[in-house]
Amino acid sequence: MTSQFNKKSEAWSARFSEPVSDLVKRYTASVFFDNRMASVDIQGSLAHAEMLSAQNIITTQDYADIQRGMAQIQGEIESGKFEWLLDLEDVHLNIEKRLTELVGDAGKRLHTGRSRNDQVATDIRLYMRNAIDNIIELLRGLRAALIDLAEKNAETILPGFTHMQVAQPITFGHHILAYVEMFGRDTERMQDCRKRVNRLPLGAAALAGTTFPIDRERVARTLGFDEVCYNSLDAVSDRDFAIEFCAAAALIMTHISRMSEELVIWMSPRVGFIDIADRFCTGSSIMPQKKNPDVPELARGKTGRVNGHLIALLTLMKGQPLAYNKDNQEDKEPLFDTVDTIIDTLRIFADMATGISVKPDAMRAAALQGYATATDLADYLVKKGLPFRDAHEAVAHAVKTCVEKGCDLSDMSLAELQTYSALIGEDIFEVLTLEGSVAARDHIGGTAPNQVRAAIIRARKNLAF
Amino acid sequence: MTSQFNKKSEAWSARFSEPVSDLVKRYTASVFFDNRMASVDIQGSLAHAEMLSAQNIITTQDYADIQRGMAQIQGEIESGKFEWLLDLEDVHLNIEKRLTELVGDAGKRLHTGRSRNDQVATDIRLYMRNAIDNIIELLRGLRAALIDLAEKNAETILPGFTHMQVAQPITFGHHILAYVEMFGRDTERMQDCRKRVNRLPLGAAALAGTTFPIDRERVARTLGFDEVCYNSLDAVSDRDFAIEFCAAAALIMTHISRMSEELVIWMSPRVGFIDIADRFCTGSSIMPQKKNPDVPELARGKTGRVNGHLIALLTLMKGQPLAYNKDNQEDKEPLFDTVDTIIDTLRIFADMATGISVKPDAMRAAALQGYATATDLADYLVKKGLPFRDAHEAVAHAVKTCVEKGCDLSDMSLAELQTYSALIGEDIFEVLTLEGSVAARDHIGGTAPNQVRAAIIRARKNLAF
Amino acid sequence: MTSQFNKKSEAWSARFSEPVSDLVKRYTASVFFDNRMASVDIQGSLAHAEMLSAQNIITTQDYADIQRGMAQIQGEIESGKFEWLLDLEDVHLNIEKRLTELVGDAGKRLHTGRSRNDQVATDIRLYMRNAIDNIIELLRGLRAALIDLAEKNAETILPGFTHMQVAQPITFGHHILAYVEMFGRDTERMQDCRKRVNRLPLGAAALAGTTFPIDRERVARTLGFDEVCYNSLDAVSDRDFAIEFCAAAALIMTHISRMSEELVIWMSPRVGFIDIADRFCTGSSIMPQKKNPDVPELARGKTGRVNGHLIALLTLMKGQPLAYNKDNQEDKEPLFDTVDTIIDTLRIFADMATGISVKPDAMRAAALQGYATATDLADYLVKKGLPFRDAHEAVAHAVKTCVEKGCDLSDMSLAELQTYSALIGEDIFEVLTLEGSVAARDHIGGTAPNQVRAAIIRARKNLAF
Amino acid sequence: MTSQFNKKSEAWSARFSEPVSDLVKRYTASVFFDNRMASVDIQGSLAHAEMLSAQNIITTQDYADIQRGMAQIQGEIESGKFEWLLDLEDVHLNIEKRLTELVGDAGKRLHTGRSRNDQVATDIRLYMRNAIDNIIELLRGLRAALIDLAEKNAETILPGFTHMQVAQPITFGHHILAYVEMFGRDTERMQDCRKRVNRLPLGAAALAGTTFPIDRERVARTLGFDEVCYNSLDAVSDRDFAIEFCAAAALIMTHISRMSEELVIWMSPRVGFIDIADRFCTGSSIMPQKKNPDVPELARGKTGRVNGHLIALLTLMKGQPLAYNKDNQEDKEPLFDTVDTIIDTLRIFADMATGISVKPDAMRAAALQGYATATDLADYLVKKGLPFRDAHEAVAHAVKTCVEKGCDLSDMSLAELQTYSALIGEDIFEVLTLEGSVAARDHIGGTAPNQVRAAIIRARKNLAF
Repeated sequence: MTSQFNKKSEAWSARFSEPVSDLVKRYTASVFFDNRMASVDIQGSLAHAEMLSAQNIITTQDYADIQRGMAQIQGEIESGKFEWLLDLEDVHLNIEKRLTELVGDAGKRLHTGRSRNDQVATDIRLYMRNAIDNIIELLRGLRAALIDLAEKNAETILPGFTHMQVAQPITFGHHILAYVEMFGRDTERMQDCRKRVNRLPLGAAALAGTTFPIDRERVARTLGFDEVCYNSLDAVSDRDFAIEFCAAAALIMTHISRMSEELVIWMSPRVGFIDIADRFCTGSSIMPQKKNPDVPELARGKTGRVNGHLIALLTLMKGQPLAYNKDNQEDKEPLFDTVDTIIDTLRIFADMATGISVKPDAMRAAALQGYATATDLADYLVKKGLPFRDAHEAVAHAVKTCVEKGCDLSDMSLAELQTYSALIGEDIFEVLTLEGSVAARDHIGGTAPNQVRAAIIRARKNLAF
Repeated sequence: MTSQFNKKSEAWSARFSEPVSDLVKRYTASVFFDNRMASVDIQGSLAHAEMLSAQNIITTQDYADIQRGMAQIQGEIESGKFEWLLDLEDVHLNIEKRLTELVGDAGKRLHTGRSRNDQVATDIRLYMRNAIDNIIELLRGLRAALIDLAEKNAETILPGFTHMQVAQPITFGHHILAYVEMFGRDTERMQDCRKRVNRLPLGAAALAGTTFPIDRERVARTLGFDEVCYNSLDAVSDRDFAIEFCAAAALIMTHISRMSEELVIWMSPRVGFIDIADRFCTGSSIMPQKKNPDVPELARGKTGRVNGHLIALLTLMKGQPLAYNKDNQEDKEPLFDTVDTIIDTLRIFADMATGISVKPDAMRAAALQGYATATDLADYLVKKGLPFRDAHEAVAHAVKTCVEKGCDLSDMSLAELQTYSALIGEDIFEVLTLEGSVAARDHIGGTAPNQVRAAIIRARKNLAF
Repeated sequence: MTSQFNKKSEAWSARFSEPVSDLVKRYTASVFFDNRMASVDIQGSLAHAEMLSAQNIITTQDYADIQRGMAQIQGEIESGKFEWLLDLEDVHLNIEKRLTELVGDAGKRLHTGRSRNDQVATDIRLYMRNAIDNIIELLRGLRAALIDLAEKNAETILPGFTHMQVAQPITFGHHILAYVEMFGRDTERMQDCRKRVNRLPLGAAALAGTTFPIDRERVARTLGFDEVCYNSLDAVSDRDFAIEFCAAAALIMTHISRMSEELVIWMSPRVGFIDIADRFCTGSSIMPQKKNPDVPELARGKTGRVNGHLIALLTLMKGQPLAYNKDNQEDKEPLFDTVDTIIDTLRIFADMATGISVKPDAMRAAALQGYATATDLADYLVKKGLPFRDAHEAVAHAVKTCVEKGCDLSDMSLAELQTYSALIGEDIFEVLTLEGSVAARDHIGGTAPNQVRAAIIRARKNLAF
Repeated sequence: MTSQFNKKSEAWSARFSEPVSDLVKRYTASVFFDNRMASVDIQGSLAHAEMLSAQNIITTQDYADIQRGMAQIQGEIESGKFEWLLDLEDVHLNIEKRLTELVGDAGKRLHTGRSRNDQVATDIRLYMRNAIDNIIELLRGLRAALIDLAEKNAETILPGFTHMQVAQPITFGHHILAYVEMFGRDTERMQDCRKRVNRLPLGAAALAGTTFPIDRERVARTLGFDEVCYNSLDAVSDRDFAIEFCAAAALIMTHISRMSEELVIWMSPRVGFIDIADRFCTGSSIMPQKKNPDVPELARGKTGRVNGHLIALLTLMKGQPLAYNKDNQEDKEPLFDTVDTIIDTLRIFADMATGISVKPDAMRAAALQGYATATDLADYLVKKGLPFRDAHEAVAHAVKTCVEKGCDLSDMSLAELQTYSALIGEDIFEVLTLEGSVAARDHIGGTAPNQVRAAIIRARKNLAF
């Protein structure tokens, strides 16, 4: 009796009267993108075999043979000698076939009590768990680099913008720490997602469990899973974790896109707040003077890619009846590309954060344009007894005059200022300085330099988690 | 000096020389959708005023006036007497204007040390927290109803499908519990999301914090927030939680869509596994015989709506520079519609779960068609010593013969069966029954009735969280 | 015999034993959003009745009664007196029920030979055709306003940016005409979409056509449709046109978002290229000096809404079996909101285009920063015989020196310039002026002022289509 | 003077002081996915060089050299000998560098009067035009195969479904023609999209046009473009056509997903309307009896992929300021994968259409279940004078009785039927047959066999366009 799966074109031959056509083979095969799961596939198979042996479903000798065969296969893959065959459809059949070549009947016994449905679900979860751990580490690196940048600029003043209009003076350190918060939340989401990734589907078999006396909790322990999936139908058809991961990844890219937008604007000559090291920039094929912030631009564009993958997966799962359907094979490419995009982008941003030079003079000049301290004047009036809404109105009149005269609030004389409110005294000029304005926002979360320094200490502590 | 905000068309008049046009007013106003946040806006304002008073930023009398005014406004809104004005743009200015009418200068002092930017962020979070608590409760109700349905059908056999082809016999209780798992994970995700919703932005003011000596942690305690947002720029511009919520909601709807798809197929006459109570169905304007499963169909369609809202929010936030931009006003309608859709759908599905009648005869008939016990025969051969892959192949030959003869495996004589493997004995006929097949999958997560009963106990325990 | 549809809760009573619950009624009803199709529903019904009468399926008297009843209903709706009942589910049953109240049996005969499935498909198409015609007209208005703005600025020089870095000098008129091109393509797409909208589904009845001797082409002529839908199953289930419309709308919003982004950046104080009239801006509740470009920001945000609706519809239709399913009811809200968003946004942008003031001095100052004419120097060298790649390299060296010295290329002496290439002569200084640079790009599509003027003439001609 | 672009790491060296890092190189390079545009890049370059020569911008000898060099490069690429270098970033620089190696200064002159910005835009459009032509041809093939299938089944009766409930009898030929209509509209959309693809951006240079006396219309003619892009800023930044293409592709996949859903349901054993040839199916690794419709399932899943790419591109372009930004490099992978997905899917579906075997007995049995002819009875009563709404109600009562008795309408005696309406006569039994019902829907677009045959003739005629 020949093996069922020498070639996919003959794979289902006992039941089938006609081989799969070449186009169909290529259309349905996944081996050229799912072979990145080879290591975790072997890891999962070994844990399964260990349990089969412990439960006396296969012999100790079978298990030893499987271990030996898998060790050789792992070596072949790592050295690039393993031959991936389209005819064998996917990573799982390629490895199992080679195992049977190497160790004979023990290889044919490996699939006892499991199915490709639970096998592939287990592999993806192992792969995802590694990816998430990697991403959490990279998020830590990016946050650390941004905290360093913030520390160097805890007192560097630039205008804070709302609506791209000058709002109030802030410190650059405070601004950068906003991104540290965002990437901190991204870390939390990845950790939450990991809990739902780290559950073992193996043992669900095709969809209903198996008639063999398996021990799923043993396999879970061996593979480091927190618990087992408690329903076999759900276990083989669940791709929630992939969608949840892509949603969390889309938020990472959203934050990256916001930071990129700011880097690009800040490096634009009219703004000129920063420069980015040459190694993250390229020039133009036609304009010899150009130095373009390619990395943040490209990263901003890659947001689309990850949003798209999220939609791909949601569309994929919409309306699928239980349990496993072939549609699910389409989960891998969006997932893998999302992992790659996030990993590359986080790595390059952590590096780029060290390549940002700050131009304090340009920042200060910008903060002096646009009446950044108008709120301080209003707050001053409130402290002198005026209701806030009335103070707001008084300052609005003063600003209007300044706009007409082309001057700043601090350029007015005391007498002029007093025409807007008799409550204004000599002490107002201290209030209207950039340093005074920034230092006055001195509560948790505020932009005052000593709050920024406190926030840096807090953020560094959080890096430990 | 007239108030800044009698009408939006005059609202910014001291600084502005031209009123806002009617079309612009309508285009930019949010009051007709954000007034659902009126209660939480009042709640937030009261907590802010209490803190201002405790910190001596406003007087005790001011605070008492604000309390009195807000109580009256709350009453006016609840009784439908409150007049919402487009000219006042949003829920916040409408309420503040009315407060000032009612209590004078105390009303004008309420906005001390805050901005609409942190006010609106606080309101949305309070609103979201309520919505999430509501949704978690409704998920609990739906899971409870499904567990009851599963319990009644712990032994009801139907074919389990993969690829819409008959795979193996399962129990209907087991099938329904797959959805209990899904809605259980949805609950976890909502709980995780709630942690990130329940942080206080108030105190961030416009973007940089305020010069008043505010106590943000006091406000957080008053409003039941777990902690404060630690960076003011992030606090006013963060909408992560809205996106994370919509992503979790999209997964709820994905599960609803899968269940709906199955309900619709199961109620189709050729399948006929279930009937849905008339009150969830409608007829046709032209075909007098029709009874259509409108509710699951419509729910399946509403998946699109929620996926769309998720994309709307992701697109909205992509590439936004810090801090607040007007774009963010567009966060509310997708969010509110998502909340409404989830709440209505969960409520109606919990109700509908009690209106599903199961047709065990049709289920059984279907399970007898399609060689559902072929895997059991293969497993039997493995237990007799054949490697799994060889057993699989032997059974494939037997099935092929059955297809050609139009009979089931259990219709073959022992002699016939033995032509496929000499290992087959008389005990095979027990293995090939539906009951035998189902009972044999007797491990955690498997479809055996006693596993289903154990899973029900486990699932009921989880309802407590 | 009582009417089938006094109330939806009794609507299907002969076949049904249980009324629809209140929650179900609200969940499944569409009347509160589909009543905007009332006029086209009446229009479609009248055309259908006219045909029924012409084909002797109903009597001339019946047709006259229906006309009379519909005229009254139209009046009631326009005057706000028509009572829309949730119990009657949708706009179609509400109107038909009222018609039967008014004219008796003729009303009950109106539905002969049609179904709600083809009726609603016809109504949406009539509604969409009107919306598209409206949008095409508004696109024309916006293009006309932008052409006027371009004409006023055919010679106004600003820096053209790539990567937000100064690239080459261009004229503001040329820049604005880029948007005229985009909105021109949007017009083409709407016209193409209209062809596929303007086909008549009526006559498909529920899904298979009708047994009455209808004349579909007569109805098509009456209603101004270009042709009939040629397959009844497709006619009732097709929503391609809605998706195609939303995709075209998403491109309109993409263009709006790009223009908005530029307006916001241009109005930011460090750039200061333009000002937007006060009536399109608002202030801040806390910062008295602020003037925020709310309209472009909000419009940019609304891009998300339309992208989301597109995804909603694509998700809705994915995997739907033929023919009509209740899911399709979900097509309307995304579609209607897309129409409203596009119409409001185009109208407000056409108005806002007239409220943009250009600040030529700021534009010119920016063009003088960033070596905008470096390409001109390279081209000059090529014309003197240097291969382009070598010329590019020579200029790159010159720019590097300028960056180090903090000067512009035109600030160098001839002797200095000649150190980078001996080919440079006295005539270089003409080449390095902004006016010289702009005027030199004098071919179709180029930025030279006389090309801009030619483009304006061409664009005005296109407005006629 | 060394060439600018021996390696990307040195590429911008004159202006830059630091090479690009390896990670940045990999992150920003596109050569490993954009090299599929090599042929069109060469085609575009040759047309550009021909024009440069005709305009005396380069010499005839330069043009001859470029032709010779490009011929050799084309050969090297086709034979797989061309060495693609990551260091040279993209397909354009790789080819230009090799050209310069082969032909010296002529190669350096090729880039005169153009930029990578307009070069890449031209290449994509040439690539897209080829892809669209290919897709239109494949759509024709699929329609032709479906028309053949419809023709064979012009009289094969099956139940038409709405809401997955039996609605009215239809013919299978009619059902299949619904898809021919859909793929016909897809063809129209591709043709409309092609108009907007087929416009020449070359000559826009970086963003503003060039100072060389180029002849854009000559290049357009050479390359077969319908016209030139009329604004240089728009020409380099426009990606509308890519989005429009992906939207049209998403509709193709939507149709594919609907057809796939039906094929999967039809092949499910309880329905059993069709069988799909073995070569489009696969088996199970665990269940020996399985034959799974992999191809339609996978195709249904691929809908997500294309919807995702559409969102990726829309997200990419949202809010991009003019003119070219590096974000745009992200347009290619979604576009290329969409093209591949559509081409593979259409090809495999055209093939699979010939591998569908119809099972008329199962179809007929299903049509006899579910009161498919109830509408015919209602129509019969209307023709006897009853208003439609009253007829509908009478039949609803009759169906209710049948449901209770477990019989069909045609199983009732005349006397029984007459209890629901005295208008019923002996001729009713002809009306209640499946053949009678189908034949009676005999108008354009109806399901009557002779209408199906007429529709086939019409559809075959349309194949010519």
